[in-house]
Amino acid sequence: MDLNAYLKHHLARVERALDHYLPDEETLPASLHKAMRYSVFAGGKRLRPVLMIAACETVGGDTASVLPAACAMEMIHTYSLIHDDLPAMDDDDFRRGRPTNHKVFGDAAAILAGDALLTEAFILLSNPNFAGSIPPQIRCQVIHTLARCAGSQGMVGGQVVDMESEGKEINFPTLEYIHTRKTGALMLAAIQAGGLIGGAGDEALASLTRYGEAAGLAFQIADDVLDVVGDQQVLGKNVGSDQARGKATYPALLGLDAARSRALELRDLAIEALDPFGDQADPLRGIAHYIVDRTC
Amino acid sequence: MDLNAYLKHHLARVERALDHYLPDEETLPASLHKAMRYSVFAGGKRLRPVLMIAACETVGGDTASVLPAACAMEMIHTYSLIHDDLPAMDDDDFRRGRPTNHKVFGDAAAILAGDALLTEAFILLSNPNFAGSIPPQIRCQVIHTLARCAGSQGMVGGQVVDMESEGKEINFPTLEYIHTRKTGALMLAAIQAGGLIGGAGDEALASLTRYGEAAGLAFQIADDVLDVVGDQQVLGKNVGSDQARGKATYPALLGLDAARSRALELRDLAIEALDPFGDQADPLRGIAHYIVDRTC
Repeated sequence: MDLNAYLKHHLARVERALDHYLPDEETLPASLHKAMRYSVFAGGKRLRPVLMIAACETVGGDTASVLPAACAMEMIHTYSLIHDDLPAMDDDDFRRGRPTNHKVFGDAAAILAGDALLTEAFILLSNPNFAGSIPPQIRCQVIHTLARCAGSQGMVGGQVVDMESEGKEINFPTLEYIHTRKTGALMLAAIQAGGLIGGAGDEALASLTRYGEAAGLAFQIADDVLDVVGDQQVLGKNVGSDQARGKATYPALLGLDAARSRALELRDLAIEALDPFGDQADPLRGIAHYIVDRTC
Repeated sequence: MDLNAYLKHHLARVERALDHYLPDEETLPASLHKAMRYSVFAGGKRLRPVLMIAACETVGGDTASVLPAACAMEMIHTYSLIHDDLPAMDDDDFRRGRPTNHKVFGDAAAILAGDALLTEAFILLSNPNFAGSIPPQIRCQVIHTLARCAGSQGMVGGQVVDMESEGKEINFPTLEYIHTRKTGALMLAAIQAGGLIGGAGDEALASLTRYGEAAGLAFQIADDVLDVVGDQQVLGKNVGSDQARGKATYPALLGLDAARSRALELRDLAIEALDPFGDQADPLRGIAHYIVDRTC
């Protein structure tokens, strides 16, 4: 399959859907909706929404039905970036080559834009007009999956431990704790939600979960590696910024080669988990390669 | 009816339920759960949860089934207070006589504790273990109601316009925009959610909505009045703090007497909206008095 064409096609669908679901810039308060849209349309790869779509396809579901949840997922991801970039947190001035939300709109507006995007995700997930043919029981499960992975024992928890670990020597279990939660949790939730909406049974969901856990961690390790070896254009942030900040990373703890090996190993584990599925899982297989091969 | 006994009884139930539903302080990351619990258990009146319980009772529902949603509502309310108090926002050092979250845990931890509480609300609302006998369709409606009222066109929107109005001359429609959203929206959502969970039909929901709109606005006006005439012990914050900050308030715009009259008028409108209900609406009637009579 042509993964690039696949990614491009679904990225365009997600862009259109996000534009449709987000309140427009004329809706009051206009300044808030402008700040929300600024960061949502800042040129992300939409990896999580596309993973959700691909997971839905893997279990034979209708990918149109997954778009509201895919957009909700991207709103949650975007809120986390806005808050991470705040002066009180990572204090980043640029993301993807553009000034960060608080640099353009101010700290207070950025906090509120993040809050509103997180909330908007749940407005969308529970909106009866966009439920399509998804049974309410499944919608509750999807909401629970996304919320859990984004919450205090998921993404936010990972961010807390990451911050607390800055400049400290940390051990390997702590590093995996951070990575599986800070980045991995949302990617796993995207895949599980895609499966749920696609009508997956317990066995298919278990396979998707194994894929999601491995691919999510592989993604974060590859990101760490890229921070060491990548170039600024690919990454949109300064090379070595993790190191400069004393952030815990795989290359710092294991060395660059071992980190790369671990990412490749996880990629293969992810692909192996898709064995029960046929060709319909090809997009997920391709994405596992895409995530890791860009750097390892 | 003895409203004080009613409030005390249900406040104790809500406290126990919150303690049960929130991750404990030993759950990792412990620092995050400690920060979340610090603000949740900072001595709130639990007015929104009790309103939800009373609305459920008004339509003949089982008040036990409303507790998870009532706690979720309180988590949303608490997150909004933590973020409002941040230096980038209102920059408050004290709330209810205790140091604010960021004064104890730092700005970053306070932002994340707020984010986690908002997310935890949706974890709880969608948790199948706490669904009781509420049909999934109704649970989705409750989630939608709470999210919408908390979002960019509800509470967060009200906060944005409130901040943008500081130190400016604003007109009456803008003041009502702020008040109906910043405080009123969550109170209305509490009442609507209580009705939904209690099995209210369209007509009963419409009556509850009229009650909630009037009572929510009355509450905010009474709060404004209290800021001018109250004492620090009642309010837990400095008297005149709104004025000092150049905040838009009813007394500032209408004068103290007219603000009081408007609150009383809204109280009566709220109580009138309960006419279709019998004695079961007495707690809601009592709360309408309680909200306004403390100050007007």
